[in-house]
Amino acid sequence: MTDFAATRTLFHLPEGMIYLDGNSLGPLPKAAQARLTQTLADEWGEMLITGWNKAGWMAQATALGDRIAPLIGAEPGSVTCGDTLSIKVYQALAAALDMTDRKIILSDTGNFPSDLYMAQGLIGALDQGHELVTVAPERIAETLSEDVGVLMLTEVDYRSGRKHDMAALTKAAQALGIITIWDLAHSAGALPVHLSTCNADFAVGCTYKYLNGGPGAPAFIYVAPRHVEQVRPALSGWLGHEAPFAFDADYRPGGGIERMRVGTPPILQFAALDAALDAWEGVDLHDLRAASIALSERFIAEVEARTDLVLASPRVAEQRGSQVSFAHPHGYAVMQALIARGVVGDFRAPNLIRFGFTPLYLSEEEVVRAAEILAEILESGSWDRPEFHARSAVT
Amino acid sequence: MTDFAATRTLFHLPEGMIYLDGNSLGPLPKAAQARLTQTLADEWGEMLITGWNKAGWMAQATALGDRIAPLIGAEPGSVTCGDTLSIKVYQALAAALDMTDRKIILSDTGNFPSDLYMAQGLIGALDQGHELVTVAPERIAETLSEDVGVLMLTEVDYRSGRKHDMAALTKAAQALGIITIWDLAHSAGALPVHLSTCNADFAVGCTYKYLNGGPGAPAFIYVAPRHVEQVRPALSGWLGHEAPFAFDADYRPGGGIERMRVGTPPILQFAALDAALDAWEGVDLHDLRAASIALSERFIAEVEARTDLVLASPRVAEQRGSQVSFAHPHGYAVMQALIARGVVGDFRAPNLIRFGFTPLYLSEEEVVRAAEILAEILESGSWDRPEFHARSAVT
Repeated sequence: MTDFAATRTLFHLPEGMIYLDGNSLGPLPKAAQARLTQTLADEWGEMLITGWNKAGWMAQATALGDRIAPLIGAEPGSVTCGDTLSIKVYQALAAALDMTDRKIILSDTGNFPSDLYMAQGLIGALDQGHELVTVAPERIAETLSEDVGVLMLTEVDYRSGRKHDMAALTKAAQALGIITIWDLAHSAGALPVHLSTCNADFAVGCTYKYLNGGPGAPAFIYVAPRHVEQVRPALSGWLGHEAPFAFDADYRPGGGIERMRVGTPPILQFAALDAALDAWEGVDLHDLRAASIALSERFIAEVEARTDLVLASPRVAEQRGSQVSFAHPHGYAVMQALIARGVVGDFRAPNLIRFGFTPLYLSEEEVVRAAEILAEILESGSWDRPEFHARSAVT
Repeated sequence: MTDFAATRTLFHLPEGMIYLDGNSLGPLPKAAQARLTQTLADEWGEMLITGWNKAGWMAQATALGDRIAPLIGAEPGSVTCGDTLSIKVYQALAAALDMTDRKIILSDTGNFPSDLYMAQGLIGALDQGHELVTVAPERIAETLSEDVGVLMLTEVDYRSGRKHDMAALTKAAQALGIITIWDLAHSAGALPVHLSTCNADFAVGCTYKYLNGGPGAPAFIYVAPRHVEQVRPALSGWLGHEAPFAFDADYRPGGGIERMRVGTPPILQFAALDAALDAWEGVDLHDLRAASIALSERFIAEVEARTDLVLASPRVAEQRGSQVSFAHPHGYAVMQALIARGVVGDFRAPNLIRFGFTPLYLSEEEVVRAAEILAEILESGSWDRPEFHARSAVT
């Protein structure tokens, strides 16, 4: 059994805070501070430009990918890190569209908006008659057809936590000649993912949520080994070139997943991410999933026993990721009141209060206490104060 | 007069090293360590998700752009930071192509290869008959015509240090209806740049060279205020949306330069960059340019007095950026021998040894000593050892 009491000691958690927002930004791994200090003092400071070789900076994009690969069921050498998730979505989608003559990109209305925006931007730039079609999540399976070129989905819905059946949808899509792109933003580090077993074509994800890589941590991209040598990168940057330091005039894609690298990688963010990934050593993802479900179920039960809030996530645990949302017409103010009491979740428009469950550092006692505080706030009406209604830029 | 003895104290420079490679990666600003520690401990660690508001993370991309703007002669609010330089080249080029029906992108053979690669990738993805034409740098002016849609140049050549006349070329291009994109990778922090005065349309640059932002520091992009509200972003990520946290289904570009943001910004890299930019407070860029020329001229004179190396940079200081290259048939080995003696420059294929001059932290004594050591290595033939010929991944 994974020792979650031990993994909890690896993170800094602020005194008096119950943190139910690791699905937005994971907490600071205690090892990150020393790792950053070392990267600055011993590497950047002392090695300067030679750090690209001596400290191994140049190889880190794919070395980190290899550390993430087992968490998402990917083959070694099939994942590389860098850029942002939006950029990686663009790369995957541009590559997928290049592999098919079909013009329809199918997604769902629960996909994270930036994925849809990147598709819209790519379609506009290409000006080749592509179309983004979005349907309700539960209608994806029935909408698959031989007119669809690419199925682009986020496995776990950022608002409701509803989880697609990756294996079944990938199989159904591929039977119709559709290429699949899976966004794992709310999956990687939240639950077991089986990219290789599911025969996924492309996947992308971020590392600042359940992987605890820090604010603005780099994204990752997966390309199935059966495709990668044929993939034509639209974002053909020098670090994806076969020989970046030959400084050739013409782009030649690098071997394997290396071609999905673009520009100079963010070494300070890499250092923090590398420290964060240490926490996964010895973690069994099935233990993680069981603990996540236990925490989520307990929270739902405690909230429903104490309040009349309406669950906005699937009732069946296996159909959820590692987060739970409730609807409240004044969700924003309720969440601000919760945060003021030290219970940090977040609000998602129009009316959802959202809570993430992260067994690496979250205990059952905290989950129960969070439900108690939520009930107190609703019971007393203390959320209905002007300061809790005032909107800030990021919610 | 700028006090360069004072700015030197702001950087950590390794004992016994003469660093002539600030044009590849600037040294560690002493303030960066404390800034990172603060960002990790006080912001990420204590504020967690609320750091996006409380610590101002969300506003930093454009706040940092506003700190860079005066260094490149840009209007306030016209620069934003993030991603890599290759991504920013793609954004600028996609936006520029969207503004013209002409199909030719003109660049020169001295442009940094990644800029050309990104153009090739974009052209391939668009599949609309665009063509990248490259000519020798000195032939750019005569090649401008009404067939050219976009002129995409790096102001200072990464190999030779040759500097284009931005004002003259921009004017000549615009007289023919050509849109200009300037890559300032080797200009920002190296010499005065006057984007607004030159009437440039787009500019991009990196911050890890002369701006000392650290390995993988974010890039920046400039869009002329007269264009920005019409620019249609190809990389239409959520942080470039008018209201990112409304989570609308459709992309609507944000106001002004905000629309050139893409995904979640790299906050740890931003912290280091912000610390690095402190060094520019009180620096007069004309003093910087004068000091850079003095250092470069002294180095050329000392090298030519002691060796028969052939200058591969323009002879006239005003035609160079802040770097100087010499040709040597075994340039790679010579540079390795120099590095082994503590003189760090770099090698650029096929045969250039390259030296950057950075008055913020480099003294005339160091420059003279570097020339002496170079002369000793060439005189003794000590560069001709197997260990100096062995290639590593990054040179």
